[in-house]
Amino acid sequence: MSDHVYKTIELTGSSTTGTDDAVRVAIARAARTIRHMDWFQVVETRGHIEEGAIAHWQVTVKIGFRMED
Amino acid sequence: MSDHVYKTIELTGSSTTGTDDAVRVAIARAARTIRHMDWFQVVETRGHIEEGAIAHWQVTVKIGFRMED
Amino acid sequence: MSDHVYKTIELTGSSTTGTDDAVRVAIARAARTIRHMDWFQVVETRGHIEEGAIAHWQVTVKIGFRMED
Amino acid sequence: MSDHVYKTIELTGSSTTGTDDAVRVAIARAARTIRHMDWFQVVETRGHIEEGAIAHWQVTVKIGFRMED
Amino acid sequence: MSDHVYKTIELTGSSTTGTDDAVRVAIARAARTIRHMDWFQVVETRGHIEEGAIAHWQVTVKIGFRMED
Amino acid sequence: MSDHVYKTIELTGSSTTGTDDAVRVAIARAARTIRHMDWFQVVETRGHIEEGAIAHWQVTVKIGFRMED
Amino acid sequence: MSDHVYKTIELTGSSTTGTDDAVRVAIARAARTIRHMDWFQVVETRGHIEEGAIAHWQVTVKIGFRMED
Amino acid sequence: MSDHVYKTIELTGSSTTGTDDAVRVAIARAARTIRHMDWFQVVETRGHIEEGAIAHWQVTVKIGFRMED
Amino acid sequence: MSDHVYKTIELTGSSTTGTDDAVRVAIARAARTIRHMDWFQVVETRGHIEEGAIAHWQVTVKIGFRMED
Amino acid sequence: MSDHVYKTIELTGSSTTGTDDAVRVAIARAARTIRHMDWFQVVETRGHIEEGAIAHWQVTVKIGFRMED
Amino acid sequence: MSDHVYKTIELTGSSTTGTDDAVRVAIARAARTIRHMDWFQVVETRGHIEEGAIAHWQVTVKIGFRMED
Amino acid sequence: MSDHVYKTIELTGSSTTGTDDAVRVAIARAARTIRHMDWFQVVETRGHIEEGAIAHWQVTVKIGFRMED
Repeated sequence: MSDHVYKTIELTGSSTTGTDDAVRVAIARAARTIRHMDWFQVVETRGHIEEGAIAHWQVTVKIGFRMED
Repeated sequence: MSDHVYKTIELTGSSTTGTDDAVRVAIARAARTIRHMDWFQVVETRGHIEEGAIAHWQVTVKIGFRMED
Repeated sequence: MSDHVYKTIELTGSSTTGTDDAVRVAIARAARTIRHMDWFQVVETRGHIEEGAIAHWQVTVKIGFRMED
Repeated sequence: MSDHVYKTIELTGSSTTGTDDAVRVAIARAARTIRHMDWFQVVETRGHIEEGAIAHWQVTVKIGFRMED
Repeated sequence: MSDHVYKTIELTGSSTTGTDDAVRVAIARAARTIRHMDWFQVVETRGHIEEGAIAHWQVTVKIGFRMED
Repeated sequence: MSDHVYKTIELTGSSTTGTDDAVRVAIARAARTIRHMDWFQVVETRGHIEEGAIAHWQVTVKIGFRMED
Repeated sequence: MSDHVYKTIELTGSSTTGTDDAVRVAIARAARTIRHMDWFQVVETRGHIEEGAIAHWQVTVKIGFRMED
Repeated sequence: MSDHVYKTIELTGSSTTGTDDAVRVAIARAARTIRHMDWFQVVETRGHIEEGAIAHWQVTVKIGFRMED
Repeated sequence: MSDHVYKTIELTGSSTTGTDDAVRVAIARAARTIRHMDWFQVVETRGHIEEGAIAHWQVTVKIGFRMED
Repeated sequence: MSDHVYKTIELTGSSTTGTDDAVRVAIARAARTIRHMDWFQVVETRGHIEEGAIAHWQVTVKIGFRMED
Repeated sequence: MSDHVYKTIELTGSSTTGTDDAVRVAIARAARTIRHMDWFQVVETRGHIEEGAIAHWQVTVKIGFRMED
Repeated sequence: MSDHVYKTIELTGSSTTGTDDAVRVAIARAARTIRHMDWFQVVETRGHIEEGAIAHWQVTVKIGFRMED
């Protein structure tokens, strides 16, 4: 609980299902290489339209993780 | 419909399910003590990560309700 | 892929189901008259409360589409 | 009251009288061709100065109207 | 004049007359229950349109008041 | 109409009457020492409350004027 | 010079050359169908990267034009 | 750790000492009546000048606290 | 207390000590030539890093002062 | 390198050529009366349209300069 | 085209030539170590002034690239 | 002084002492692995409250450093 330092990275998850799933996709990808992830914050929600319907949801999140001491 | 006055409060709902549910949790809690609620607006979507996965979704909403005359 | 021009319009979709569905409603309505839609961006998420519960989710999106040459 | 879709347009009304009148001018012009207007939101208040005094007030509003089903 | 603490609340006043009157309506309502009000700040100006004309002006203000020691 | 340069200054006008008058007060004061004023833009609307009522409206404007060649 | 009303639309011009050219492309396309254009404002500058180099500059502008009386 | 709801209030602390102390003053005042306070966020730092020197630092904070179940 | 006009200027104070001191440095410099200073607002906090440590804190403040009648 | 104070002014340069040139025009005009200019920041890019083509580019910059000790 | 994840980094390119070139410099530097770059977005345009003229243009861009699966 | 490129990262320093110390903690941690750090900018100041008092100050900074040529 002492003077930790956190780093923030920004990822965009993509999903054909919806906004919450796009966030989960981004967190899951980050979890493959980053430890001690602590929080996320949604910064943008966009999407790609094809043939008049939503093809992909794209949600950009900031992810904060504790740096190793 | 005449010169009403509305008050806005800011709540953060938390949910293990997703963003929409976090909003519902916040509105439901407010409904226990506030009458005449009229609208809400999402102001921030964050979450808590544990063991590399989303543990809680946290959505902050402004809620507007009509003040008693 | 040459020097195309895109136009952006702003629509608000309404849904009793949730945020993602409100976006789909807006895109579907636009698809009835607009061709070559390419992307959308969520700019505001609000809703209407009745009897202490969410009656409608209202999501405002910007929609970009390629103009005819 | 079901899943309606609203469109937003942005107009700038101009008036020699003041800010409220500039808004009314913009709404009145829109009313000549748009039906089902529902709300407006002021997004910018500017003006033109001539000879050291305000010559025109220019207020930009977003206007939302319900699209025909 | 020493280390006072102020609280901010957010109200939306509604008026058929204009923006300044909508602010006055909000302040007047607040004055019925709050003492030591000190300042306000306009945060949003919207309105409701009926039959192609402005039916209500809705101005949201933050109001700051000194808390009792 | 060639390559002119404009300077912007920021003033806050105060009035007991209302927002539009506070803008006029600021412009009138500026006109005493500045020539070639061309436009203004409202950047903040605040006010001072005394005894539960608005004592002063305070509107901050940016004012642009053409610099002498 | 009397109480005119202006409408704002938002276009994104695309160019392989640079930012200024992308703005010109957007204005030129608008000029084919819109009369009385009066001003533009840049709201976003983005681009597409291919093979490690800029393939297209994409500049989004708001364009204001006077509505016919 | 289940679906809690948090409320946010906005206070302005005042101090003759500095910015950090102004935050502490606001938190201390809130602690007299609010339980389960969890976080704060600085939203504005202002101050009052008298005789050419800083008389008071005024820091506005949002304070989040868990609502009783 | 009548219809005063205030002017705002923007200064950046620099200090090797910390943020509060950088604000004091800016106010002190302004006090050498400006009378009737009334308030300040912090608009940006930056700094310069040398050899992996903070060499200067740079705080930008808006300063408001009453103009002579 | 010790505790310097910088002042920021805001100018709008105009050019028939393009955005970069409009910035140069503003800096060149400022250089005629201001010494010790250190940096600039673009805050807005607009332009004037005549006969369906860009007549002037107007770029607003903040310019920072060191105040004399 | 399935559920890709993109990462965003923020670089500042510097150039003595102009804004577009500063963007190219940043992209070119990134291309030396990053593959699958897809888009960029300008977030800030600043510059350094020496002897009353622009010495360097400094443009900050966010660059998005697809992460390896 | 030629066409350098800078990279920006975002860290959150935590401290029980105050805001300036939280910034120093973040810079010190970054200095262990990053060379050529040049500037920082505060983007958010938050904190954690325990038992009605501030337990940790959390300041998020953007840090810019020159990339190796």
